[in-house]
Amino acid sequence: MVIAQSGGPSMVINASLCGAVAAAKGKAGAGKIGKILGARHGILGILNGDYVDMRKISTRKMDAIARTPSSALGSCRRKPSAEDCRAIFENFKKLNVGYFFYIGGNDSADAARIVAEEAAKEGYPLVCWHIPKTIDNDLRSCDHTPGYGSAARFVACALRGDDLDNRALGGVKIDVIMGRDAGFLTAASALARQREDDGPHLIYLPEVPFSETKFVKDVKAAMKKFGRCVVAVSEGIRGKDGVPIGAKLGSGEKDSHGNVQMSGTGALGDSLARLLKEKAEVKRVRADTFGYLQRSFPGIASDVDRDEAFGAGFVAVAAAVKEAVSGTTMTGTIAITRKKGRKYGVNYEWRPIADAAKYARSMPREFIAKNGHDVTQAFLDYARPLVGELPPCEII
Amino acid sequence: MVIAQSGGPSMVINASLCGAVAAAKGKAGAGKIGKILGARHGILGILNGDYVDMRKISTRKMDAIARTPSSALGSCRRKPSAEDCRAIFENFKKLNVGYFFYIGGNDSADAARIVAEEAAKEGYPLVCWHIPKTIDNDLRSCDHTPGYGSAARFVACALRGDDLDNRALGGVKIDVIMGRDAGFLTAASALARQREDDGPHLIYLPEVPFSETKFVKDVKAAMKKFGRCVVAVSEGIRGKDGVPIGAKLGSGEKDSHGNVQMSGTGALGDSLARLLKEKAEVKRVRADTFGYLQRSFPGIASDVDRDEAFGAGFVAVAAAVKEAVSGTTMTGTIAITRKKGRKYGVNYEWRPIADAAKYARSMPREFIAKNGHDVTQAFLDYARPLVGELPPCEII
Repeated sequence: MVIAQSGGPSMVINASLCGAVAAAKGKAGAGKIGKILGARHGILGILNGDYVDMRKISTRKMDAIARTPSSALGSCRRKPSAEDCRAIFENFKKLNVGYFFYIGGNDSADAARIVAEEAAKEGYPLVCWHIPKTIDNDLRSCDHTPGYGSAARFVACALRGDDLDNRALGGVKIDVIMGRDAGFLTAASALARQREDDGPHLIYLPEVPFSETKFVKDVKAAMKKFGRCVVAVSEGIRGKDGVPIGAKLGSGEKDSHGNVQMSGTGALGDSLARLLKEKAEVKRVRADTFGYLQRSFPGIASDVDRDEAFGAGFVAVAAAVKEAVSGTTMTGTIAITRKKGRKYGVNYEWRPIADAAKYARSMPREFIAKNGHDVTQAFLDYARPLVGELPPCEII
Repeated sequence: MVIAQSGGPSMVINASLCGAVAAAKGKAGAGKIGKILGARHGILGILNGDYVDMRKISTRKMDAIARTPSSALGSCRRKPSAEDCRAIFENFKKLNVGYFFYIGGNDSADAARIVAEEAAKEGYPLVCWHIPKTIDNDLRSCDHTPGYGSAARFVACALRGDDLDNRALGGVKIDVIMGRDAGFLTAASALARQREDDGPHLIYLPEVPFSETKFVKDVKAAMKKFGRCVVAVSEGIRGKDGVPIGAKLGSGEKDSHGNVQMSGTGALGDSLARLLKEKAEVKRVRADTFGYLQRSFPGIASDVDRDEAFGAGFVAVAAAVKEAVSGTTMTGTIAITRKKGRKYGVNYEWRPIADAAKYARSMPREFIAKNGHDVTQAFLDYARPLVGELPPCEII
C-alpha cells in the first residue's frame, strides 16, 4: 500500500494519515496489506521513489504526528499526466503496490480519479481511494470536510480577539480569510460573536458578487450603528465578471490545476483598506490577511475535526480492503454525512471519487443572509459542532 | 482612584487592570481608596467624563476579564497637552480623584509622566503611577514587559506551524512580525525551533541595518542548505538611513506621539516577496503579516505573563498608596526585574516614570547573533520562561 498527502496542508490531515495507517496495521489490513509506504510530497514521491516505511514508525510517534499540523509526508500541487501515471504504475509494479490512498481536496481527488482511470485503462490492478481533506470545506461529496473545523476554529478565535481589539481602538478592521471558491471559512468568522454588537459586522463571501459601492455603503452604515466596524472578507470575493478581485491584484502565479495564487499576499486587504479611506471617509482602517496561520497553527485544532479526520482515514482503508476483496469496487472516496437528529454525529460512506473531484461546492443559499453580507442561523447551527467551544471573552 | 488603559492592546493588559482593582478593593486600598473609576479609552474617557464604576463589577466577571484579550476599558493613542491636563485636573477635582493609574507602553508612560508633572506644576495633589504593558518588550525600566510573553507565545506557535507548512510545500515563506523599534517579538520566532533544520532559518531585527543584497544572499544560502527557507522579519527593519522600510511603503499615517503606522498592512511582506522572486530566483515565495492577531488572539496567553501582568497592576496600587501615605513619592512606574539564580522568578520594584517613558529599549547586543540574521542562546534562555511550553510537533 502507498499513501500520500496532496494540496494545501491542514491542522488535521496528519490525523487522516494516522487513521489510514492504523487501519492498515490493524484488523482491516491483516493478511491483505504488507508494506505501508508513505510517499513524500504526494505523487512526486512516487515518481521519485521517495518512500517512508510507515510500519517502522512507533505508535507513540504516530500519535504525536496526528496532533501535528501540516502534511507530515510533505505535499505537492501536481495534476498527474498520462505519462506520470505510466511512471507511477511502473514504480508500483516493482514494489508490488495494490493499494493507493491519496489524502487531499478536490484537486487531489481529481488526481486520484485520473490515477484510477489510467490504471483501469492500462490494466494495472490498483485499488485507488481518495481521503477527503480541505480547510475550504468545498468537497461536493461531504457534509463537511476534515480540516475545516480546525481552520474555522482559528478564524472564529481570531475574529473574537480582533473584534475586542477593534472595540478598544475603533475604526474599521478588515480581515481577509482563505477560501478560493467557497465562503465556508470566512462564514465561520460569525461564530466569534457572543453579543449583539460583536463583530464581524460585515461578512463578504465569494458566493455573493462583490460591489465596491455596496461595500462602502455597508461600512458607512455599520460605522453609524456601532461606531466601529469589523469586516470578514473571503480572499475569493469576485465582482460581477466572476473574476476573483484578489487574483487581479496578485502575482498571477498558477499551479498545474490552473488555480491562481491568492494566499500569501496582503494585496486584497490593502486595496480594500485604501478604498475605505478614500470613499468611506474613515480615518483608521487596518487590514490583516490571516494567511497560512489558518491551516497550520498548532495547539488549537478542533477535537471533533481531528477525530473525524482520523475516522475518514481509518474507514477509507478498511472500506477499500473490504470492497476490493468482495469485488464490489476498486475505487472510491469517503463521504462524511451528518446523522439526523439533535445529537451531532457523522457517518462515513462510500462515493465514487468523481463526486469529490475537480468542481468545488459553494455555500448553499440557505446559509447566506439576504442582505448579502452575513450568514444565517442555519449556517451557525451547521458549523458550531464542527468548531467546538471557543474561549469565552468578557467585556466591561 | 481613576484607572485607564492606553496604546496597543495586549492579551494580558486586562489582567493588570484586574490586579490594580483587586488591590484597590482589598487591604491596600482600604480606608484610602473610595470609588474606583475606569476611564473608557484612556485619557479621552477622563476628558469626556466617561467612567465605569469598577466596584460594581463582580469578582467572577473580573476573573473572566483578566483572561480576555484586548483593553476592556478601551484605549487611545493621545499625548496629553497642557490644556488636556488642565481639563483632566478639573474633572478630577469634581470627582475628588487622588490616584491615577495608566496602563501602557512607553508612550503611555510618557503621558503619565506629563500628567504627573503638570499636576505638580498646577499644585493638584495627584498620586500618578504608570503600569507597564507592551508586546514590544521595549520598556527600558523592565527586564521584560507584561504582554510580551503572550505575544511571543503566539509568534513562536505560529512559526512552529508555519515552518511545517513550508516543509510540506517548499519555497520561501516570509513572516512579518510586530515591533516598531525593538526586535524582541520577532526574535521570539526562534523559540519555534525543535530540530536543527527547523525554521525560522533567517531572522531580521530592527537593531541590525537591513541590506537587500545581504537578504537575497542569505536566502539563497538557506535554500541551498535546507532546500527551503522560512524568514521572520520585524515590521521595523530599517536600512542604513535608519528609516523603517515598512514606513516608506505604508500610508504615512501618524499618531499624536509621532509614530508612523506600520501594522495593519501587508506592504512590507509583499515587497520583500517580490524582491526574492526577482533577485533570488525562487519560484514559490509567500509572505504573511501576522498583524493584530499577535496581540489579541484569545486562549493562548502565557500563564507566566498573565500572572505577572496581574502582579504589576496589584503592586502598583499597593505601592502607590504606601509611598503616598508615607510621603516618599507621589509618582512612579513598576519595574519588573528578574530574580538571580536558576529558578525563574521576578521582583516588582519602584522606578521613576521617566525610566519607562518615551524612548524605547532595543535588543541588547548579546541577544543578536554575529551573522546579523539570528538570535543567540542567551536570548533563548531569556525568553523561554516568559513564553512557556509550546505544543510539541513531530515530523516524519
